[in-house]
Amino acid sequence: MKKILIYDTTLRDGSQGEHISFSVEDKLHILKKLDELGVDYVEGGWPGSNRKDIDFFRRAQGLKLRHTKVAAFGSTRHPRRSAARDPNLQALIEANTPVVTIFGKAWNLHVKVALGISLEENLGLIRESVAFLKSKGKEVVYDAEHFFDGFKADPAYALATLAAAEEAGADTLVLCDTNGGTLTADICEHFRAASQRVRTPLGIHTHNDGEMAVANSIAAVQQGAVHVQGTFNGYGERCGNANLCSVIPGIELKLGLRCLGKKGLKRLTEISHYVSELANLPPRSDLPYVGKSAFAHKGGIHVSAVMKERAAYEHVDPAVVGNERRVLVSELSGRSNVLYKAEELGLKIDRASPAAKVVVDKLKEMEHDGYQFEGAEASFEILFNKLVHHSREFFELAGFRVITEKQGANESYSEAVIKLRVDGKEEHTAAEGVGPVSALDRALRKSLTTFFPCIQDIRLTDYKVRVLNPKGATDAKVRVLIETSDGHDTWGTVGVSENIIEASWQALVDSITFKLKKEYGYRRQDRQARAAK
Amino acid sequence: MKKILIYDTTLRDGSQGEHISFSVEDKLHILKKLDELGVDYVEGGWPGSNRKDIDFFRRAQGLKLRHTKVAAFGSTRHPRRSAARDPNLQALIEANTPVVTIFGKAWNLHVKVALGISLEENLGLIRESVAFLKSKGKEVVYDAEHFFDGFKADPAYALATLAAAEEAGADTLVLCDTNGGTLTADICEHFRAASQRVRTPLGIHTHNDGEMAVANSIAAVQQGAVHVQGTFNGYGERCGNANLCSVIPGIELKLGLRCLGKKGLKRLTEISHYVSELANLPPRSDLPYVGKSAFAHKGGIHVSAVMKERAAYEHVDPAVVGNERRVLVSELSGRSNVLYKAEELGLKIDRASPAAKVVVDKLKEMEHDGYQFEGAEASFEILFNKLVHHSREFFELAGFRVITEKQGANESYSEAVIKLRVDGKEEHTAAEGVGPVSALDRALRKSLTTFFPCIQDIRLTDYKVRVLNPKGATDAKVRVLIETSDGHDTWGTVGVSENIIEASWQALVDSITFKLKKEYGYRRQDRQARAAK
Repeated sequence: MKKILIYDTTLRDGSQGEHISFSVEDKLHILKKLDELGVDYVEGGWPGSNRKDIDFFRRAQGLKLRHTKVAAFGSTRHPRRSAARDPNLQALIEANTPVVTIFGKAWNLHVKVALGISLEENLGLIRESVAFLKSKGKEVVYDAEHFFDGFKADPAYALATLAAAEEAGADTLVLCDTNGGTLTADICEHFRAASQRVRTPLGIHTHNDGEMAVANSIAAVQQGAVHVQGTFNGYGERCGNANLCSVIPGIELKLGLRCLGKKGLKRLTEISHYVSELANLPPRSDLPYVGKSAFAHKGGIHVSAVMKERAAYEHVDPAVVGNERRVLVSELSGRSNVLYKAEELGLKIDRASPAAKVVVDKLKEMEHDGYQFEGAEASFEILFNKLVHHSREFFELAGFRVITEKQGANESYSEAVIKLRVDGKEEHTAAEGVGPVSALDRALRKSLTTFFPCIQDIRLTDYKVRVLNPKGATDAKVRVLIETSDGHDTWGTVGVSENIIEASWQALVDSITFKLKKEYGYRRQDRQARAAK
Repeated sequence: MKKILIYDTTLRDGSQGEHISFSVEDKLHILKKLDELGVDYVEGGWPGSNRKDIDFFRRAQGLKLRHTKVAAFGSTRHPRRSAARDPNLQALIEANTPVVTIFGKAWNLHVKVALGISLEENLGLIRESVAFLKSKGKEVVYDAEHFFDGFKADPAYALATLAAAEEAGADTLVLCDTNGGTLTADICEHFRAASQRVRTPLGIHTHNDGEMAVANSIAAVQQGAVHVQGTFNGYGERCGNANLCSVIPGIELKLGLRCLGKKGLKRLTEISHYVSELANLPPRSDLPYVGKSAFAHKGGIHVSAVMKERAAYEHVDPAVVGNERRVLVSELSGRSNVLYKAEELGLKIDRASPAAKVVVDKLKEMEHDGYQFEGAEASFEILFNKLVHHSREFFELAGFRVITEKQGANESYSEAVIKLRVDGKEEHTAAEGVGPVSALDRALRKSLTTFFPCIQDIRLTDYKVRVLNPKGATDAKVRVLIETSDGHDTWGTVGVSENIIEASWQALVDSITFKLKKEYGYRRQDRQARAAK
């Protein structure tokens, strides 16, 4: 099977995305992960542009990689410097990577405006820079910046720049749609022209400014590209780069060519989330293949059809890319989705019973108020048991008070006081925290540990706040999602209120209730709670 | 110039997206906006599926639309009912719209699995349903569901379903990539086959499961489609529908065909934000054409080149779609971006001065700590004036205390106490709010109004919270972004802390400082403040 090489530039072009800033540690973590996944090349940064990238290359040399070749990125030499005395090329050599990628100008406009030299001089720049790197024993990837815009302006010149890099010995020539605005049909046509002119293996590098980066990459592979550049989750400057999380399954599952292989493909969803975690950006739920909604069905017709036949509304099997099917609950979906969801969580209910209607109605009302049970299945289960089995609370709140104080220019200080009752016994305690929610969380857990020692095992692993109607400003409603773990299991809970403390409180109470239910069961809680003491 | 008809289904297919739920009011607002914009068709909902959509169509009849035709959506008749007695078709007639869109099955798999009838019976369903709607005087759009998957499975049958709808008088035949997994090259080939078989005008409806919905729509137009379906911002089930915010400028600016015209195109960014506002989803900043980052330059090289020549790194002029260029500040961008940004805000600084270095260093340090000045230009300006002009504070905080209390099952209650000093005079006051931040905001403004009456003019118009490291759970750092308006101007400010009250405080202080600076100027604030009293 033909193999297509994957060249990841999340660490370089990806970090040009707004809101993205990787630490050196983050970059090393991602590099290791991409190596595990079987990515062929990882472009680590531009050693000529900042200290952080120089650091990265120094530390990356210490890693034992199994598969990935690390590439350092830079440009052709400065117009007024020889290759041997160009500090940028020097920095590329010092990065000490097996692969060096340099970009050169393919667009006559750029040669004139950005470099201010003649078209002929630019060809010399390309030739000498590539030859210099080859003389140092590097594998050289040559990025033809703005190839497609250049081809539109002056096809012969754009092709001549490729030929210059080829003559000088470049190992791969990558055609770049740097401005990201080229149409798929033009990508195909210009790619064909290039493949008729040069014999060096060709690659493709696209941006998403026309929302076509993935389609353009796949089309180029169909035209013979054997090397594809992109980033995880499509991160990158402006509208981003070609999203490898869509390009890779496109190549493997739709074109039937090989890049990561089956094992790698199965880890795609996991790695996509890992990278967004380190980028400190919420994973986009609508991302193709790897997003949480990618195989989520909401319409009632879709749900019932997909139950009968997977292919009915799924273009690929979610398991192949490590993702899963989900069924959503909403006013569009009706009874069958709600009940499907309950069954999925192992909750039993007679579909025709009046209790089923109570659950459906209550859920719709709560979703309308801003609750969301995706990612908060524990809250769903607690609610379900309350409505269907009339389960009682494990504890009763007498009251709490959360205080945040600031004196002059000092940092704010938060503390919480709480009074709870369990079986008629009262516990009155206090705790401090870095903020009001943290103080409340600590006070709540401190007071309950006396009654339920298992509370000590749990810790919050995630806390998210979403302002539901930002235009309401500080009076807006907020939704808090909390994730809790006890070392074995992880569960999510939700709270909604105009008061962020109240919303957090709801999610905290559900988080603890879920743990207590795990330990003591719902129905027998009074008896068990007593026994536990 | 050839005209391509735009068919918007944000209100129907778009609302199948996870996290999307429009009220009837929202839907009517969006319909009016799309009419203003010049969208040809708006699909309002499925009257056969829920009460909300029936309501919508009833109320939509009362609107005076200038351009848009409203369409009601449904399916071909039930296999065991005649067209005249089918409740779904009945509901479509009762919706009382000029246009009715129905989908029928083009994929033999679906006919068998979802409908459980013979291929021949399905052709009858299509023919009779279309003919029935035509007999009622409707313009009929026929959506060939799963046309492309159907074509792959059985080309002759998929084409036969189109012919059936054509014979019965359908006005437009829309080829749907319902599962969203078809490659662009296949879209082109199958589209050509359809256009050779039928003479009715053809449309295209794509989904984004392969991240190719926009490329596939544009490719279909190049193959002769004259009607394009999609949604604003690409909302829709799973990975969404073709994003009209990219399709429309693609058609107008890249293919040179007409759909909205220049005036409509200029409003695209505004309407994209309007729809995301009503969908209650944050606008995606990396959206092509209309996103906040779509023309944002971060790399130093890009910034300096784009200053010389717009086309250097911009595929279209941002003004044409109502967007604008931005220059970002980050560790990648260096000195020139920071100073460009300062100049953009009208702040003067000698680029070579030691003060310029102080500003650049401080900004980089703060961005590293989680501050973000995009959308918080007022905070940037205040900081700049502090560092460069050593401007003094308008007021001094002695201290505040914010208390949130909850008694038993009652809703939480928040109040704030604050003590401030202005020119040696102290003001000690208190206020309550729906949450702790709202209470603090009110107390702060109440106390300052005594000294600076102009504070009464301002109100907060937006409040956003972002948890920067969610894994830190309730100890995580949060960034608060506030937007303030005084009726004339709107400005954004930012605060960062592990304590949400502290972060909100920073943003609130900047928000008020910016207003006071507007009124009294920075340098003369002591004198002016006294005069104001």
